[in-house]
Amino acid sequence: MGNAGWLIGLAVVGLVVGVQGLRVVQEYERGIVFRFGRLAGVRGPGLRLLVPFVDRMVKVSLRLAVLDVPKQDVITRDNVPVRVNAVVFFQVEDAVQAVIEVANYTQATSQKAQTTLRSVLGECELDELLASREKINQELRVIIDRETERWGVRIRGVEVKDVELPEEMQRAMARQAEAERER
Amino acid sequence: MGNAGWLIGLAVVGLVVGVQGLRVVQEYERGIVFRFGRLAGVRGPGLRLLVPFVDRMVKVSLRLAVLDVPKQDVITRDNVPVRVNAVVFFQVEDAVQAVIEVANYTQATSQKAQTTLRSVLGECELDELLASREKINQELRVIIDRETERWGVRIRGVEVKDVELPEEMQRAMARQAEAERER
Amino acid sequence: MGNAGWLIGLAVVGLVVGVQGLRVVQEYERGIVFRFGRLAGVRGPGLRLLVPFVDRMVKVSLRLAVLDVPKQDVITRDNVPVRVNAVVFFQVEDAVQAVIEVANYTQATSQKAQTTLRSVLGECELDELLASREKINQELRVIIDRETERWGVRIRGVEVKDVELPEEMQRAMARQAEAERER
Repeated sequence: MGNAGWLIGLAVVGLVVGVQGLRVVQEYERGIVFRFGRLAGVRGPGLRLLVPFVDRMVKVSLRLAVLDVPKQDVITRDNVPVRVNAVVFFQVEDAVQAVIEVANYTQATSQKAQTTLRSVLGECELDELLASREKINQELRVIIDRETERWGVRIRGVEVKDVELPEEMQRAMARQAEAERER
Repeated sequence: MGNAGWLIGLAVVGLVVGVQGLRVVQEYERGIVFRFGRLAGVRGPGLRLLVPFVDRMVKVSLRLAVLDVPKQDVITRDNVPVRVNAVVFFQVEDAVQAVIEVANYTQATSQKAQTTLRSVLGECELDELLASREKINQELRVIIDRETERWGVRIRGVEVKDVELPEEMQRAMARQAEAERER
Repeated sequence: MGNAGWLIGLAVVGLVVGVQGLRVVQEYERGIVFRFGRLAGVRGPGLRLLVPFVDRMVKVSLRLAVLDVPKQDVITRDNVPVRVNAVVFFQVEDAVQAVIEVANYTQATSQKAQTTLRSVLGECELDELLASREKINQELRVIIDRETERWGVRIRGVEVKDVELPEEMQRAMARQAEAERER
């Protein structure tokens, strides 16, 4: 009986350890496995078994995600202060890079988007910013993508949303448009 | 009697586990089943049994839904600042894509609608915006739909609602109309 | 006596369960029954018994309902900014469609009414808007109805209520009328 007790005990421990090593990777995820900290491959969707206490898995979603770029104060090339925000559509393309190249790929993408927004718009004139949105969006996408590519993130689209003008500028523009209308 | 106790216990556990695996999919829904995380098919309406602890179901509604696009500040091509809002009628067409291609299809659709509203209206002149609503709505629908199609969402209609003009512009237009009337 | 106790207990449980499955459908309502989520038919008015825990009923009113379309700022084709509101009389004709085709038929109808009001009135001249109300109401009814038909809602009538003109325009019209009278 003492023997049977030991066997049952062992079986229970084995079961617990085995269950602890099970991971479910979703259809739209990839699981990066680290064995004793070393990169040991990528697991696709399904039930995956890790070596307990030895393997670690980090899951990364491959779904398209939307990032809100908060309002940025930008000064255009013709010296008009504007507040601009944007959205970025992005997607992890290389799950391994997204984990080992950068500490937090969402945060890094967001920061890159913010700074690029400032630098690109700071080199535009106001009229250009207002009129050639499509061109600017495209330019933003290319510049941000060039950076995020290093950490496996693909930028699917960048779109400037709100362009807030100072009130005096708005009034001046309204007067100008009004004057043209009344001619 | 000890034996009967075990049997009853087992039956109760089996029943609880079985009931836990039951899901009801409504007539207008589809249930996407993931088995150990892997896409395992789509279930139509009715009572559906999942393998407990193994299957996961995500339900997606196929009903037409209305999305309110909040007021956007847009500057028309002839430099009139206007505030515009819109509604989008959309519907999930491919339930699987809506779950695995995008993290949140409603949010992504809403963001795409907002930015498209801005970019399309920013390339219109005020008079065009006011007079050719039908054409603009159609253009908006096509552009947004081209994007949301990738994640299984169909845009049924986009309609510009409120076009708020600055007060000076309103007055100018009123004076113009008045002058024409008194001629 | 132990036996009788069991029987009474069972009867009470049965009664409670049975009562839970009772539903009253009003004369002017239809009850859409979903059995395990599947459309299982429409119940007319009266006392209706559902299978407890299996059936779900959604009631839809077939009575004529009035929808207030809030004030909309519209700019007529001859550039007069007016504020217009309207009422829509609608009725569910196909209760099943109203439940399974659209997430919220009242909201969808209201949004469609608002946008149609704008687009139709924006293509009218002011004089037309003021003089041919009947024709405009009819046009609005037909356009809104064409859309809401898909979700089982029939538009019985649309009526433009208030047409608020800017003050300058009102004065100009008064002067014009006065001048004609004095000729």
